[in-house]
Amino acid sequence: MKPMCGIVGYIGQKQAQNILLEGLRKLEYRGYDSAGIAVYNDGKLNVKKTKGPLSALQQLTDKDPLSGEMGIGHTRWATHGKPSDENSHPHMDEKQQFSIVHNGIIENYLDIKEELQEKGYTFASETDTEVIAHLLSELYDGDLVSTVQKAVKRMEGAYALAIANVMEPDKLVAVRLASPLIVGVGDGENFIASDIPAILEHTRDVYVLNDGEMAVLTQDRVELFTTDGTPVNRDMLHVTWDAATAEKDGYEHFMLKEIHEQPKAIRDTLAARLKEGVVDLSREISLTPEELKRFDKVHIVACGTAYHAGLIGKSVIESLVRIPVEVDIASEYRYRNPILTPSTLVIVISQSGETADTLAALREAKQAGARVLGITNVVGSSVAREADEVLMTWAGPEIAVASTKAYTSQLIAIYLLGLYLARVLGTQPEEQLLEVTEALPRLSEQVKSILEDHGSIRKFAEKIAQHENLFFIGRGLDYPVVLEGSLKLKEISYIHSEAYAAGELKHGTLALIEEGIPVIALATQQAVHDKMVSNIIEVKARGAHVLGLGLEGRTDLDRSVDEHITIPETLSLLTPVLSVIPLQLLAYYTSTARGINVDKPRNLAKSVTVE
Amino acid sequence: MKPMCGIVGYIGQKQAQNILLEGLRKLEYRGYDSAGIAVYNDGKLNVKKTKGPLSALQQLTDKDPLSGEMGIGHTRWATHGKPSDENSHPHMDEKQQFSIVHNGIIENYLDIKEELQEKGYTFASETDTEVIAHLLSELYDGDLVSTVQKAVKRMEGAYALAIANVMEPDKLVAVRLASPLIVGVGDGENFIASDIPAILEHTRDVYVLNDGEMAVLTQDRVELFTTDGTPVNRDMLHVTWDAATAEKDGYEHFMLKEIHEQPKAIRDTLAARLKEGVVDLSREISLTPEELKRFDKVHIVACGTAYHAGLIGKSVIESLVRIPVEVDIASEYRYRNPILTPSTLVIVISQSGETADTLAALREAKQAGARVLGITNVVGSSVAREADEVLMTWAGPEIAVASTKAYTSQLIAIYLLGLYLARVLGTQPEEQLLEVTEALPRLSEQVKSILEDHGSIRKFAEKIAQHENLFFIGRGLDYPVVLEGSLKLKEISYIHSEAYAAGELKHGTLALIEEGIPVIALATQQAVHDKMVSNIIEVKARGAHVLGLGLEGRTDLDRSVDEHITIPETLSLLTPVLSVIPLQLLAYYTSTARGINVDKPRNLAKSVTVE
Repeated sequence: MKPMCGIVGYIGQKQAQNILLEGLRKLEYRGYDSAGIAVYNDGKLNVKKTKGPLSALQQLTDKDPLSGEMGIGHTRWATHGKPSDENSHPHMDEKQQFSIVHNGIIENYLDIKEELQEKGYTFASETDTEVIAHLLSELYDGDLVSTVQKAVKRMEGAYALAIANVMEPDKLVAVRLASPLIVGVGDGENFIASDIPAILEHTRDVYVLNDGEMAVLTQDRVELFTTDGTPVNRDMLHVTWDAATAEKDGYEHFMLKEIHEQPKAIRDTLAARLKEGVVDLSREISLTPEELKRFDKVHIVACGTAYHAGLIGKSVIESLVRIPVEVDIASEYRYRNPILTPSTLVIVISQSGETADTLAALREAKQAGARVLGITNVVGSSVAREADEVLMTWAGPEIAVASTKAYTSQLIAIYLLGLYLARVLGTQPEEQLLEVTEALPRLSEQVKSILEDHGSIRKFAEKIAQHENLFFIGRGLDYPVVLEGSLKLKEISYIHSEAYAAGELKHGTLALIEEGIPVIALATQQAVHDKMVSNIIEVKARGAHVLGLGLEGRTDLDRSVDEHITIPETLSLLTPVLSVIPLQLLAYYTSTARGINVDKPRNLAKSVTVE
Repeated sequence: MKPMCGIVGYIGQKQAQNILLEGLRKLEYRGYDSAGIAVYNDGKLNVKKTKGPLSALQQLTDKDPLSGEMGIGHTRWATHGKPSDENSHPHMDEKQQFSIVHNGIIENYLDIKEELQEKGYTFASETDTEVIAHLLSELYDGDLVSTVQKAVKRMEGAYALAIANVMEPDKLVAVRLASPLIVGVGDGENFIASDIPAILEHTRDVYVLNDGEMAVLTQDRVELFTTDGTPVNRDMLHVTWDAATAEKDGYEHFMLKEIHEQPKAIRDTLAARLKEGVVDLSREISLTPEELKRFDKVHIVACGTAYHAGLIGKSVIESLVRIPVEVDIASEYRYRNPILTPSTLVIVISQSGETADTLAALREAKQAGARVLGITNVVGSSVAREADEVLMTWAGPEIAVASTKAYTSQLIAIYLLGLYLARVLGTQPEEQLLEVTEALPRLSEQVKSILEDHGSIRKFAEKIAQHENLFFIGRGLDYPVVLEGSLKLKEISYIHSEAYAAGELKHGTLALIEEGIPVIALATQQAVHDKMVSNIIEVKARGAHVLGLGLEGRTDLDRSVDEHITIPETLSLLTPVLSVIPLQLLAYYTSTARGINVDKPRNLAKSVTVE
């Protein structure tokens, strides 16, 4: 759903400048470091671009407005070359005939650049994008469409482009290869955007481009082709989604709002799938019991927070279904030649359904003959469209860069899947499954009770905000939870935090434990409780200041730690849904205590649609 | 081989004090934070103990020597309670009748302590050890041996003990449960020690105690029993190992010496197993080709550095043998109820062969019916004795806490195993196996050439020594190597360093990349080279100062990084043996630049024989 850079394009009868600026503003929350627009007027493409926020760009256009009814705009999140005026988009060729905005990476840009430099082209920026403008100029044959087709053949990578030129000012071209792009269809005007909100106030009728497709827009028409030139017929999508759902509902930040939406997200994700103690996914998953029985191996593939959900998925599926599960980082999985057979079930997890590495893994797994089940939060996303089976999370739009409600909803989807497989395959006694299915719906209220009582977490957050380094430790199912808690804290507080399987600290990292360093220790797993207390005593003995997080009613933890918070009691298998909540709050309050813009941490984008 | 705490005991006709102090000195390099001795004289056990180095203890005994011919000594590495005079061993009961030294953990000590407190006992320290002394006093029935047997029944955990009392000054008792302990047999004198070097100048005849066994020593006799009282017959071991091999050979530190011993360790580990392009392990591995064919799953289980070798083992075995491999941290594996069947091959890796969690995993896997293959560096270690199959690394004694030559030797053992399995099972064409087997012996010379040219690494080390945080990144087989490089740096330089799969940085941790932060980037894997360069450009764009490590002859890396070093070209599969060498040197020189005692980093012990 959410591109790394924002792209907007307009062609019609209104002034383009403000439509482009407004569109970019709608994409602002995804993070960017510079912005720019190009507007066509009287034989020229005039550009304004600058490092910094949109307000800086607005100052430039206020001083010297760009007139014209066709143009493109861009918010940039640096990949090649640092944030600067020169590196901002749009980029142009030397003759100022072509203007380009671009999301993604041209992997072979250095080769193309050297080739063009030999031909005498000089470059104004460090970006891969500028290379495209010069390449188009070099290849131009009098027809923008065929020129773009030729250029695309030379470009390796993953990208989305919007292209204007001065020779054919009656058209805009959009190209998608592995980076989201849509076309909005209006009345006497048409739009390009990297995501729907950018154009929602102008039209609700859109075409979603697929990989390897391009669109040619005039003010009255939109034509879709493959980049080979074959015409494409696509159904128009009518968007009913309401832009207002993305508002903050009175919370100071989207992240805090989304943390508090978790009881609802959990309820919504459970609803209609869980009835009278039985999980039924047969309406969503088309695999028959016979087909399900054939799986002898599960691979879970994801990135970032979703990868942490996958680690918990391994425990859940292995313990309930007794099929071996391997969990992989998507960017590694693709290139390690995994052992895939038709009896491998590959589960990919992506909130946006557009995470580039995860999507690539999905495609390779399908190609290798494996069956792919996608867990995603966005209807109509690439994962939702391309996976053989889809299990939706119903968390609603997630805006904050740091994922919270999408993550807990992914966990719920995993529990549902594990329980469903266990029931269909008969791998666990009914009464054991019943115990879990009865505990699941209680999680929503339990999360709520944790959210209501966050005073001590906030106090602890204010303490750790003074530190530059800290550790998280946990064993068993607490281990993936501390990985997630640590990532959350890193993302939005910039504290160097590392999470460890508590028993592993002794094998090297204990050297970093010194007087006063905060250690956040999870101890919710009954089976390893005593071992965990021993690990806590180890770091205490070296001077660590320990926050212990345990279960209500287990009173011995507070004897061993400096500060102690609890979560309500539930089955050991389900604790991750509860124990992550205080860690989300900890990250949030630490970030605000350090005066950081929680929703827009530096260097990060909401979803990563380049590799 | 190497216990966490050091234990020495003496009973004979000589003055015990100096024999105990000398023995402790021989164990010094394993790391400790306090030391103490107790010597019997004239109805009393007199104790000297102190926080700090052995020289501090020596000052106490110089001022006020302890006379007597029986005693026990200890170097402590804190687990329960911080390093302090009170927490040092030996510990005594309130009546000063029993004196104890202890290695390991009594897991239920809080329960026993509370019970004894209710009976009126008061405690002088925070340790679990002191509880044992009071428990012996409470249970004493006039016979030390039967009293110890009763006490052991109450104590849960993993430990080794040496015990003296004033009522029976003609004997010493030693007990082993999952923590190494030996008895040395002399002429009119006998010894207890946690490891052989402690007593090597007095005797070369030793009994190695097994778990659940105890020894009763008088000056003329040694008797072995199980802790249930059943007599044990044990062959005496005659030690031929030369204490002088553990010297530093002119290097400033053991670690540097061991880094330079790697060409030899690689050669020795390959020798006799690799002939005319064919790997033959049939003299060491008793599994028949038919038995080998039956394996459909491999689990690799290890801790710390050996775990990183295991991660590389996964790639090696999966690519050569096409059997799915799961790699687990031993402390997690034991408690996660892994799916084990008779067709699972479990590979455990431990330099010392005594790593407590690894050993426990080995035992559980055997109990579950899996076949276990141990890779270890110590003949006669618990792993070597208990695994079904053993593949030795021939790295020679490793003294430095930070493992180097043992690690590269483990990698060599893994390549040999992968090649052997692939040949026996016919999973790869002969010529492909030949390509690898021919490249293997060249690694030794290639490592040597890297060691000879370390000037730029040393210079970079001096730079990063100024920093408190940095990152390592890599993809594919470079990823486990950066994990190892990062651990090495953490262990001995105390710099907060985290290693990332480069494609995963974008999913959160990129927030921590700020102007000037050092990033060490490995780019030795051809298949992901361009992706890796893109990741390097990402961190560069955010101001990181990048050291790139690539292959000789791939010249494009230096265009993208700030500093550039290379390793000789080899197969992508084999690069980990070479690429880790500059990272070991980097850790070493960073540590010395920071003025840290490389061989004895704070908080760490050479091998971890408690959980």
